[in-house]
Amino acid sequence: MQRAVADSREEAHLPFIAVDWGTTNRRVYRIERGNVVATERDDIGILSVPMGGFPAQIAELRTRFGGLPIVRAGMVGSDRGWHDAGYVCRTATIESVAAAMVQPEHGVAIVPGVCVNTRGRTEVMRGEEVQLLGAVAAGLAPVDALLCQPGTHSKWAVMKDGAIADFTTAMTGEMFALLKSHALIGREMYGDVEADAAFREGVETCADTDLLSALFGVRAASLLGKRAPGEAAAYVSGLLIGSDCRARITRPGMTIHLLADGLLSRLYSAAITIAGGRVVIVDSQVSFIAGIARIRNLMS
Amino acid sequence: MQRAVADSREEAHLPFIAVDWGTTNRRVYRIERGNVVATERDDIGILSVPMGGFPAQIAELRTRFGGLPIVRAGMVGSDRGWHDAGYVCRTATIESVAAAMVQPEHGVAIVPGVCVNTRGRTEVMRGEEVQLLGAVAAGLAPVDALLCQPGTHSKWAVMKDGAIADFTTAMTGEMFALLKSHALIGREMYGDVEADAAFREGVETCADTDLLSALFGVRAASLLGKRAPGEAAAYVSGLLIGSDCRARITRPGMTIHLLADGLLSRLYSAAITIAGGRVVIVDSQVSFIAGIARIRNLMS
Repeated sequence: MQRAVADSREEAHLPFIAVDWGTTNRRVYRIERGNVVATERDDIGILSVPMGGFPAQIAELRTRFGGLPIVRAGMVGSDRGWHDAGYVCRTATIESVAAAMVQPEHGVAIVPGVCVNTRGRTEVMRGEEVQLLGAVAAGLAPVDALLCQPGTHSKWAVMKDGAIADFTTAMTGEMFALLKSHALIGREMYGDVEADAAFREGVETCADTDLLSALFGVRAASLLGKRAPGEAAAYVSGLLIGSDCRARITRPGMTIHLLADGLLSRLYSAAITIAGGRVVIVDSQVSFIAGIARIRNLMS
Repeated sequence: MQRAVADSREEAHLPFIAVDWGTTNRRVYRIERGNVVATERDDIGILSVPMGGFPAQIAELRTRFGGLPIVRAGMVGSDRGWHDAGYVCRTATIESVAAAMVQPEHGVAIVPGVCVNTRGRTEVMRGEEVQLLGAVAAGLAPVDALLCQPGTHSKWAVMKDGAIADFTTAMTGEMFALLKSHALIGREMYGDVEADAAFREGVETCADTDLLSALFGVRAASLLGKRAPGEAAAYVSGLLIGSDCRARITRPGMTIHLLADGLLSRLYSAAITIAGGRVVIVDSQVSFIAGIARIRNLMS
């Protein structure tokens, strides 16, 4: 017995490949003893893989990394990915996620998604759960916290005792892209988005104006010459991100742990602050590595 | 003087042509003594008229109707129409709108739009003002009322003493079309929209869920098999129209005069009722004729 436990612990520290395989891009990490020793990023998201093309992609990765075990997370485990890994219903602990791992072939495991599936409400996530559970496992967020992951579909997760107790998704990023590409106000939405005065004005406005009328106001302001050219994109971003944050910040002074960097981090930090919240930035890549390494260890 | 007044009154009852010329279609009415004696409808909206094509369209109408005076309303008076007729700022009475008529050539007049242009808020309408002022002039709505005109860009007008005192526009119909054609949830949005159980569920849901997260819920419900196929379009319509109505119905029992018929009338009636309002249906065509005839009389 002593010997078997030692073997198990040793195996847990053996190198493996972690793949964060999303809709539009892919990150690959070689992890040894919980540390990243090599990383790659490309734009081979699941939408770039032709029908029936996953086995070849997976064989290529295995060859490239000398047959090391591979742990995948993200949309690769969806019904449009390589193999549907299903969902763990809330409350999802790192142990319950690890226990529900799917292994379509020897040496290749996929992390399941997490869902809320009650009579009145449905939610799904796939890929974000590794970051969320990892952030807490790594001590970057407390075991009871509200975590925010901005993006095309922003996630707001309520962590309790280190587990995903509940979450909400908002189509904030997708809505911005839709409006910019296809709406009547899209033609005004040129210019860079930054956490500037126009963005802040949008965050303020959505406090007392519903989204559908605030968005039309962009057209009216343009016709009446009331907004400087190039400011509408930042204003609309402020309306959308502001609506997203205001719906989630239910009491003044709430702390939000924000898993974001770059522009999204600046925009959400500004909006959360205006909406009365307090921001703590969390490194999402460190969180992912901590989460996937812990899940790998729990599998061994 | 007596003679001039008599002439003016007589001229006010002379036949004229009213054109409600919108973005995607056009209605033409021959009006005599305030009554419609002939009507035509076609799909020659302003977007169908090629650059520089308005003079030919107008000449054709004048020839067809024997050179009768023409009064136009709607997007034909916008910066993308024939001639920009500008805006009357609120509060807009039927007299102030008539006084601001633009006559680009003899015998052809265009009704200006109406705007709100304050420091904090901008709104524009063009075409809807004739129906609004006409509904009150015809006694179809009281002089103090909240009027709703559903559509691509729904209008909610606060009438005071028979004038347009304030209004709000929501991009309700445009948002539905955007989501259906271009959003990730668009693929679920097949099936007819009707004021049915799925629509009502959408109206109920938006009472306590923000729009950006409620919309993503459509995707989650689909992935988890929680909504019957063909119901998502009606549900999304309920979310959008429900949000629109709930933002405007600020106290229970408020009466809304609804200028709509057909499906939009059924949908908005259902949503207004669920949101706690009381609906009175107003005939929008009768309102338009009453408004344009009154404006024509005031011009004489």
